[in-house]
Order: sequence, then structure tokens, then C-alpha cells
Amino acid sequence: MTQIELLGSRAKAASRILATLNAGEKIEALTTIANTLEQARKEILAANSLDLAAAKEAGMRESMLDRLMLDEDRVLSIARAVRNIAKLEDPIGETLHGFVTPNGMNIRKVRVPLGVIGIIYEARPNVTPDAASLCLKSSNAVILKGGKEAIHSNRCMVKLMRGALEQCSLPVDAIQLIEDTSRESTMELMQCNRYVDVLIPRGGAGLIQSVVQNATVPVIETGTGNCHIYIDKDADLAMGVEILYNAKTSRPSVCNAAESLLIHRDIAREFLPMAKRRLDEKHVKWLGCERAREILGKEIAPATPEDYGTEFLDYILSAKVVDSLEEAIDHITKYGTQHSEAIITENLRTSEEFTAKVDAAAVYVNASTRFTDGGEFGLGAEIGISTQKLHARGPMGLKELTTVKYIINGQGQVR
Amino acid sequence: MTQIELLGSRAKAASRILATLNAGEKIEALTTIANTLEQARKEILAANSLDLAAAKEAGMRESMLDRLMLDEDRVLSIARAVRNIAKLEDPIGETLHGFVTPNGMNIRKVRVPLGVIGIIYEARPNVTPDAASLCLKSSNAVILKGGKEAIHSNRCMVKLMRGALEQCSLPVDAIQLIEDTSRESTMELMQCNRYVDVLIPRGGAGLIQSVVQNATVPVIETGTGNCHIYIDKDADLAMGVEILYNAKTSRPSVCNAAESLLIHRDIAREFLPMAKRRLDEKHVKWLGCERAREILGKEIAPATPEDYGTEFLDYILSAKVVDSLEEAIDHITKYGTQHSEAIITENLRTSEEFTAKVDAAAVYVNASTRFTDGGEFGLGAEIGISTQKLHARGPMGLKELTTVKYIINGQGQVR
Repeated sequence: MTQIELLGSRAKAASRILATLNAGEKIEALTTIANTLEQARKEILAANSLDLAAAKEAGMRESMLDRLMLDEDRVLSIARAVRNIAKLEDPIGETLHGFVTPNGMNIRKVRVPLGVIGIIYEARPNVTPDAASLCLKSSNAVILKGGKEAIHSNRCMVKLMRGALEQCSLPVDAIQLIEDTSRESTMELMQCNRYVDVLIPRGGAGLIQSVVQNATVPVIETGTGNCHIYIDKDADLAMGVEILYNAKTSRPSVCNAAESLLIHRDIAREFLPMAKRRLDEKHVKWLGCERAREILGKEIAPATPEDYGTEFLDYILSAKVVDSLEEAIDHITKYGTQHSEAIITENLRTSEEFTAKVDAAAVYVNASTRFTDGGEFGLGAEIGISTQKLHARGPMGLKELTTVKYIINGQGQVR
Repeated sequence: MTQIELLGSRAKAASRILATLNAGEKIEALTTIANTLEQARKEILAANSLDLAAAKEAGMRESMLDRLMLDEDRVLSIARAVRNIAKLEDPIGETLHGFVTPNGMNIRKVRVPLGVIGIIYEARPNVTPDAASLCLKSSNAVILKGGKEAIHSNRCMVKLMRGALEQCSLPVDAIQLIEDTSRESTMELMQCNRYVDVLIPRGGAGLIQSVVQNATVPVIETGTGNCHIYIDKDADLAMGVEILYNAKTSRPSVCNAAESLLIHRDIAREFLPMAKRRLDEKHVKWLGCERAREILGKEIAPATPEDYGTEFLDYILSAKVVDSLEEAIDHITKYGTQHSEAIITENLRTSEEFTAKVDAAAVYVNASTRFTDGGEFGLGAEIGISTQKLHARGPMGLKELTTVKYIINGQGQVR
């Protein structure tokens, strides 16, 4: 048995016990985890400082270092998040549907845990307790595979969380970390169909594509967002400017930020200069089509097809003037990642056509794409935003970490 | 662009039109398909006879030939099935959940089609119109990849169905067949993530494993069923015999048939001879553990661990005496395929423990595993039985061929 198979078989065994826990036992365990993390914050920060030192020496850039870094406030906020997860409604055991068949069998479709969830992520140590807590709350065992840059932080927090489980007489193998951060061990996890029920990659496009390409275990693809704002000819232009400004600049590094602007030709001449003035406040760099450059001036760089397909995650915006709603929808179909797409229009028929024809997890009329988020959508917490169509689409909360089981009670029925 | 990419891009374009159809238009299309297949039955039978002739020459065995064969009755029954699918409740457009956020946005979670579905199957031509109709009813485009042995039948029926679509002014590329039945084209379909949203393999364990191993497109695994009947010490033994007889012999070739019997040691001596007598009526071959052989006599062949893991799909039964409920559950966990599992018991607590701990799509108390079926579970029709946990579990009907989209209507909200 390889190391990964060993982790897997232990996780599977733990998952069978987790499936029988009641909500109160899970709340107690999560509260104990939160307390433990809080009390051991010095220890966590010491482990994190080892990661930070190594990362600095390896020349990690500033924005990545910020993601890797923990401080007292961040640890306390991690513990608070665990407590919030503890308080959410328990997803397990709900009867989704039930009926009696003509021959008298009682059939119920009941919500049950997935079993063992593998989470593959990058150098963000806050994902470790967050993912572990969401899995525990939904009665799933978790196998964590974090970025090697965060190994000391992850090892420390996983040790603490396992200690908390032990304190509550729960199976410690419900939370496991793959300490071997090599490519090979990741590959093995991705193909460990015998023990792993689902993989959820959390991170950049490269990580996610690698999992999609290599996994034989079912995957929930998350988080790449090449989101568009389409300003229709019947738009309230001032509203359009404010939504674009918010969607592009309020937090450019996240997946629900806008990357591309489409403008109907009839209002392009009026809208583009307004939008440019507002976005100049944040020094947004524009990449425009020829018609946009004619209006805004040639200091705007020309946009290439590759630009239209790029999730910049930065203060950069591609812009294209279109002849019609249809052309806008075609462009989104071609370049979008089916995450979040918005139209600004006062025309009812146009808004209906856009929401019907644009194929994405979230389609907005007159609101910012930035709202695509588990908290905003009322899920309480979120393990990622699914950009695929199977199982879950859009923000995934606790219910998305479950499956169903049919339970049939008969009195001797045969067919 | 390769041939598969061409099919894929056409299917994607068609799927966008399908997504905007109303229920009436789809009913009309399906009715036209049913009429066309019925009227062209001579043409279908002529095509099928070419397949049959080639298969006989290639030495195909009788049971396979029977699956490949169409006759007038079968074509009429195919057309009837299409009409039944037309009559089912339309799954598209349903609002699953909707609310107004504190800042006044209206968020709705709406059921929408998956988009493009790839169906990979074997030499069963009836799957062709059945899968195409279920996909059309759920507003999905379909790419069919049937076994090469059925190519003439499939080509003929797909041509007829596309003709029916054309007659209804619907995009003919909503139904496409991969005529190149090589391994390479199948492989390409399985990795055509750009255009194919989901793959559903329908067939034997070998086909399904090949798709799971090679696909990068999300897969819904279907249909392997190594199903157990566990006779508890508190069982009504006569009921147990009848359920076992039904589950093993009523249709041994299907995935919900029982393959393995587990018997509590306390009632083994009484139960096994009763069961043996009843199953002798159908000449069922037993493979038993040592204790079962002691009771039933050494003419019973010994069961190997491999036998316990085998889906016989035949008049063969493996049998094992267990010391406890716990041992039965462990055995099922080890050898089962998470399809359908049954316990026979009059003990409430035991039944609850079994249904809670056995991890399968359908868990039965005092009823035959043979009921795991879309029709029996009230789904109206079925495209397969999912044995995985993502997206769908158990019988899959029209709703399982859909995903969701969040539609958000605001009045200028920013975050």
C-alpha cells in the first residue's frame, strides 16, 4: 500500500464514522477546533514564519507572500470562520423527497455525505482550516494537499485540528494532510478512485487545468472567471459606469471581478469616455478594439483575441464595441468561462434574451458580477465557485458537499 | 478542426437554440420523431439486418445478437418509448429557489440544460433513439457514439431523427452520431472539454472503466451492480428466500440483480437449504464460503475473494456466512459497487444501522434490489443508474440531465 492509499483507506474508515454523527457532535468538534487554533496561535505563527522565511529566500513575490502570511488577526479570523461554520444548518439527513409506491414500499431520498473529499490548493494556509471545517460539518473526511510553500503552517494546523478531534473522541483521520508535496503524490491522489469520492481544486487556472487533465476521480472545477459587463444600447449609462467600476476595481484579484467590457455601438461614443474617466481613478489599463480606440484615442493599446480570453486578475480591462446583443452574446460564448456575466439595460426583452442565452453560473441584469459568492447568495460559507455544470454550479456551500441515498422500506416486495 | 471538434461545435451551436425552446416545441419534435421511426420501420429493419449479418459472420454470440437485433415489435416499442418521453413533465425553466437580498437584488436559481451530452454505448441500437429523446426533452444536444456492430442501424435512425428535427424547423445538429467508430475518435470525444459538457457511458464494466480512466470531460459513471442480499438473524426466512429468488433470478443480466448472499451464522443452517431448494428451480450455481459449504454440501464450489468481487450477470450466486451485522456491512463496503444493497430483518434497530452505514445508491429493507430503476422510482424514464456520488446517484431521469443557472436582477447594485 502506498502512502496515499494508506491515507485514503484511513480517510474512508473515518468517513464511515462521520456519517453516523449527529449535528451536536459536529458542532462540539468544530468549536473545539476553533478554540484550539485560537489558543495555539503563537505556535501557528511560529510555523508560518518558517514558511515565510523560506518563501522570501526563494524570492516569492509580494502578493503571494501576503497570501502565505498569517498574523494574530488572521488566525483569530480563521477561528471565527470555523465557529460560523459550526453554526450553519446541518445538511445531513434531510429527506429531499419521499413517497409510497403503489405496491406499498416507502421510498425516501435522503441527503448523505460524499465520503472522502480531496482538496488540492496553493500556498494559502487559511484554506486548510476552512476546507477541513466545511468537510467536517458535512460529515466528510478530507485529504488536504496544500502548496509546498505552506507546509509548516499546514502541518501545524492539521496537527492541532486532529488533536481537537481526538479530544472529542472522533476519528483523527477525518482530517489528513499529504505532507509529501511532490507532483507524484498529487498525481496519485488524483487517481485514487478507490478511496477518494471527489476532488476540489482551489487555486489558479494552471492548478485547476492540471487536475481536470489528470484526475480519474470526479472533479468539481472551480473558480476561473473571465467575466464580462455588456452595456446595452438601452442602458442607464451612469449606472453602467458605476457597475463597471465596481466589478473591475473593487477587488481585481478575485474570480468574480470583471475582465472585459462590451459596448453596444449606439452608445459607445457617449459611454466609453465616461467609463474611462471613472476607471482612470484606479489607473486601469485599457486594451481596446479598433472602434474603442477611435473613440478613446490611440494611447489605448489594441486588444488581441488572446486578451479577450485572458483573466487578468489585475487593473486591466479589455473592451470591444459590438453591433448587437447577439454579437455580445456570441463574444461571451466564445471567450467566457461560464462564471459571471452581466448586462446593463433598461429594456425588458433584451434582459430576458441575455439571461436566457448566456450560459454561465450567474447571469446579472443591472448589478455587479462581484456578488457571485456563497455569503452573498445566502449559503453561509463557500468551498469554491463551480464553473462546471455537473453536481454544483456557482457558489458551493455545505449542501454541495453532499450526495443522496435512496432508502427503501418494504414488507417483502419482489418484482 | 478535427471531425469530433466539428461535431462538437455544431452540437454546441444547436444546444444554444435548444435552450430557448418551449415545452410544446419539444413535444412536437419528439412526436414527429416517433412517427418517423414508426413509418420508416422497414428501412430501419433493413439497416439492422446488415448489422446482424456482419455480426453473425464475425461470430457474435447469441445473447449479444439478441441485443443487436431489431424487429417490427421492437421498433414500434422504441417509438412508443419516445412518445412516453414526450409526455413527461418538462424539466427546464423550473425555479428551484428564489429570494430577494437585503440590498434588493432578486436572485433565482433556475433549472437549465447541461448543453452537450456525449453518450458512449455498445451494440444496442435501441439506446440511440432512447438517449436522443431524453436529451432532446431536456433541451440538450447529444453526440452519440454507439458500438461499431450497430453502425448501420444507428446511422439509419439518426438520419431519420435529424429529418424529423428539420421537419419541425429545429437544428438537426441537436442529434449527431460519430460514424467513425475507431478507438481514437472515442478518445477524442472523451477529451473534447471545449464542446462536450458531460459524458454518460452506458454498457459493461469494461466500457465504463475505460471512460472513467480516459475522459477529461466530466463523466457520470453508471450501471455496475455487485448487489448483496443480507439475511439477518432476525429475518423472516420465508420472505428472505422469496426476495433472494427474485433478486437473483427474475432477470440476472441486469445491474440491479443480486450477485451475492450474506447470511448471519445463527440462521444459516435453517436458511441455506431453503434458499438452495428455491434457487435450484432456476439451476442457480452456488459459490460458497467454507461454512456455507459445510451446510449445503461440498458439491458447492468454494468462493474466492475474486468471486465476491464479481458481477456475474448470470445464474451464479456467491454466498458467505457472517458472524454479525458489522461483518456483513464490512463485506459490502469491501466488495460492493454502491449500487443496490438489501437487508432482510424484522429488527428495527438492525435495519436502521444497515441503512445508515451501507454506502450505496439504494439501500433496501425487506424488498428486492430489482426495484432500482427509473420507472419504479417514479422518474418516468431513465438514462442510466449512477453509481457515483457527484451530480446524480441512482436512477437518472430528465432532471439529472439538467444543471442550474443563477439569474440576478438588480437596479444598479454594487459591492
